[in-house]
Amino acid sequence: MTSQEQTAATITAPSDREIRIEREFDAPRDRVFAVFTDPDLIAEWWGPRGTTTEVVAMDVRTGGDWRFVAHNSDGTQTGFRGTYREISPPERIVQTFEWDGMPGYVAVETAVFEDLGDRTKVTTTTIFHTTEERDGMLGSGMEGGMNETYERLDELLAKLAAG
Amino acid sequence: MTSQEQTAATITAPSDREIRIEREFDAPRDRVFAVFTDPDLIAEWWGPRGTTTEVVAMDVRTGGDWRFVAHNSDGTQTGFRGTYREISPPERIVQTFEWDGMPGYVAVETAVFEDLGDRTKVTTTTIFHTTEERDGMLGSGMEGGMNETYERLDELLAKLAAG
Repeated sequence: MTSQEQTAATITAPSDREIRIEREFDAPRDRVFAVFTDPDLIAEWWGPRGTTTEVVAMDVRTGGDWRFVAHNSDGTQTGFRGTYREISPPERIVQTFEWDGMPGYVAVETAVFEDLGDRTKVTTTTIFHTTEERDGMLGSGMEGGMNETYERLDELLAKLAAG
Repeated sequence: MTSQEQTAATITAPSDREIRIEREFDAPRDRVFAVFTDPDLIAEWWGPRGTTTEVVAMDVRTGGDWRFVAHNSDGTQTGFRGTYREISPPERIVQTFEWDGMPGYVAVETAVFEDLGDRTKVTTTTIFHTTEERDGMLGSGMEGGMNETYERLDELLAKLAAG
């Protein structure tokens, strides 16, 4: 397996209102889950390259709210928020996701962390209220941003493993 | 038409993820729309009889948040919140709806106000992410609470007309 194959994410549409992203990471499950839920580490990986993400709120428990503000290299910023519906370490996180640019359009993301020994597979399934909303997300350039985010996460996991 | 017929709401299921409620009110459309969007009047009609609803937030504009806490006659309380997606006076309000008891389960409510001259028809269509969530709402006793809420709204509209 080449390095590129190791880090390729697959994007599929399990239904007309869903997007599924599957990606493996070169770290054990406990470590990957911890990085997803640690407010102190979000700034190091959340968002595309050049983005610095500020954690305004991240109350990691059922019913807790999260809010991030992404500061882009061009000086602009944009906010995201949601609520944790389920936190089941180290297996599953269910949360809502809403972008400030489209207030009131709320998707639900379910992230499942699969133990592959030294590696971890993360499968994130996002459901929207309508197909139109789902297609809006697919057309937003999310794929490039997601791949950069996951590459940054690879780098953080490598740093933590070396640390 | 008897008084009872005038105030009966109809509940239908336009799809397997939706609930639709239709109800006429004996007041002109501008007045009905104003009552739905006036924070100072919410306590007089929002919720079943015996409930006093406190408006914690009600920022009536696109992207604005609302949060109500309903104080019940037995001393218990429960919260509701959401975000306004669209405010188009006097015709249409689109907002999200989330109950504190099921955080992260977010429905979208579209209320359409139809001008019938001296009367107004309000049609509210609520869409859920899944059929299971929709059925949970239908099984929650919402119908009784909704009818009491609308009767209180009738009384408030009569009082405002007399005022």
